[in-house]
Amino acid sequence: MEDYGRFLVLLVSALLVGFVSVIFSLVWVFHYREGLSWDGGAGEFNWHPVLIVTGFVFIQGIAIIVYRLPWTWKCSKLLMKFIHAGLNTIAMILAIVSMVAVFEYHNARNIPNMYSLHSWIGLTAVIFYSLQLLLGFAVFLLPFAPVPLRAALMPIHTYSGLLIFATVIASALMGITEKLIFSLKNPAYSTSPPEAIFVNCLGLLIVIFGALVLWMASRPHWKRPPEELPEVSRRNGGTPEGTEAESTMTDCSNADRSDVGFNSEAARKRNLKLDEAGQRSTM
Amino acid sequence: MEDYGRFLVLLVSALLVGFVSVIFSLVWVFHYREGLSWDGGAGEFNWHPVLIVTGFVFIQGIAIIVYRLPWTWKCSKLLMKFIHAGLNTIAMILAIVSMVAVFEYHNARNIPNMYSLHSWIGLTAVIFYSLQLLLGFAVFLLPFAPVPLRAALMPIHTYSGLLIFATVIASALMGITEKLIFSLKNPAYSTSPPEAIFVNCLGLLIVIFGALVLWMASRPHWKRPPEELPEVSRRNGGTPEGTEAESTMTDCSNADRSDVGFNSEAARKRNLKLDEAGQRSTM
Repeated sequence: MEDYGRFLVLLVSALLVGFVSVIFSLVWVFHYREGLSWDGGAGEFNWHPVLIVTGFVFIQGIAIIVYRLPWTWKCSKLLMKFIHAGLNTIAMILAIVSMVAVFEYHNARNIPNMYSLHSWIGLTAVIFYSLQLLLGFAVFLLPFAPVPLRAALMPIHTYSGLLIFATVIASALMGITEKLIFSLKNPAYSTSPPEAIFVNCLGLLIVIFGALVLWMASRPHWKRPPEELPEVSRRNGGTPEGTEAESTMTDCSNADRSDVGFNSEAARKRNLKLDEAGQRSTM
Repeated sequence: MEDYGRFLVLLVSALLVGFVSVIFSLVWVFHYREGLSWDGGAGEFNWHPVLIVTGFVFIQGIAIIVYRLPWTWKCSKLLMKFIHAGLNTIAMILAIVSMVAVFEYHNARNIPNMYSLHSWIGLTAVIFYSLQLLLGFAVFLLPFAPVPLRAALMPIHTYSGLLIFATVIASALMGITEKLIFSLKNPAYSTSPPEAIFVNCLGLLIVIFGALVLWMASRPHWKRPPEELPEVSRRNGGTPEGTEAESTMTDCSNADRSDVGFNSEAARKRNLKLDEAGQRSTM
């Protein structure tokens, strides 16, 4: 892998910033707020920021860059697709549970639902995320979709994934803004009490995490090298990204995959050739 | 240009959505709020959303995709750089004026400055935007930077530009959230009065505008074809993106540039070759 050291530094930074964000969300609700519960009270609402930061930001971020981890390149693409889909499914479930928590909290206190821009954009993100997961499952994981359809949808799938991720982060920042204005009354948000500074820092951490993930996800030379195609498929113009004949090997054992390795210059070149053919998204 | 029709549809959609967003910001401040003035009152604050939507969102968005307009490919790269830098300078000035408006409004009413996450992220975006403009001017517009430096900085310049644009949009959404909560008291934001619905729609329009610009800016086959390099520079491993010998032609006349045209397949292929060499950013 080109720039392996730089990739590692960025990965460790992203994991660290993401992990610290999750810790910050927990400190926020346990130290500054009412903790966690499931009784229609403030403790139920608090699941919302914790699960969004943990699932919809951190786990989704990991799911986005999971293909780029060079030590997974010796695993089959099918296994990696399962991990990618699995992490995204976990993120989706956590996002939905976090929304249920808010709806139940609102209903228990007769607070209207879905009036704010945060709720509009947040719900839109959850809906598009679910559609993305469903479509991704149907087209790229199940073996039924024809090659041209996979090739046509891959750039859209990749772009939508990154756009939804960025939108989720924007929505989280709006949510933080709303919550601090509503909950900090005495002292008010505008007087910058410790909670305000602390949660503003959480917002900054989320932005830094997003920036690191998006950088790693958009460098063409850090793409997973595509698997070898059967010669006939290649001659017919088969498009390797998301369309390769799936290996039956689903573990990460040291099978005979000498062409796909950390330092395989040949794999990198093949990868770039696919860029040239416009078959792989560049986002 | 590949998919010229699709590009045009997206461009017209982006321009329309961006233009409607500006109109929405004006309707917001003139129909629902106190209009515009410069006297430390609410009318001065109102310059903030209008100038941010007009300059920091709409004009910045146009500046990002200006290289991709195929009818500009017959203009010299230098002219396009001036247009790109000029539009970004206008956007920066409008963003700074819009911030001055808020500071003066706050100071006149003894409202603290810089306490909210919106202000933290917004000011950070303005600072990075200014640095980006300064660095872009010094490295890519002035003729002094050496070729390897330009080549090394171009992917960072492109990525930072898109990241700052996305951050500005996130910040605008936070600003809308803040302003609606603070200004809608009777009826409250939570009762969804017409102004709340209208300004939420402005938020959605800004997100759609951002999504369209980011899609257009990240398709590799819609990149401006690079200018021809002097043979010696190419043999020495010169990197065309941002480093080509600048043409002295700075107008868009029909000079003898037959290799750079709308439908130049050769230009597109050359462009993709550069991707292969990893010399051009893919964001």
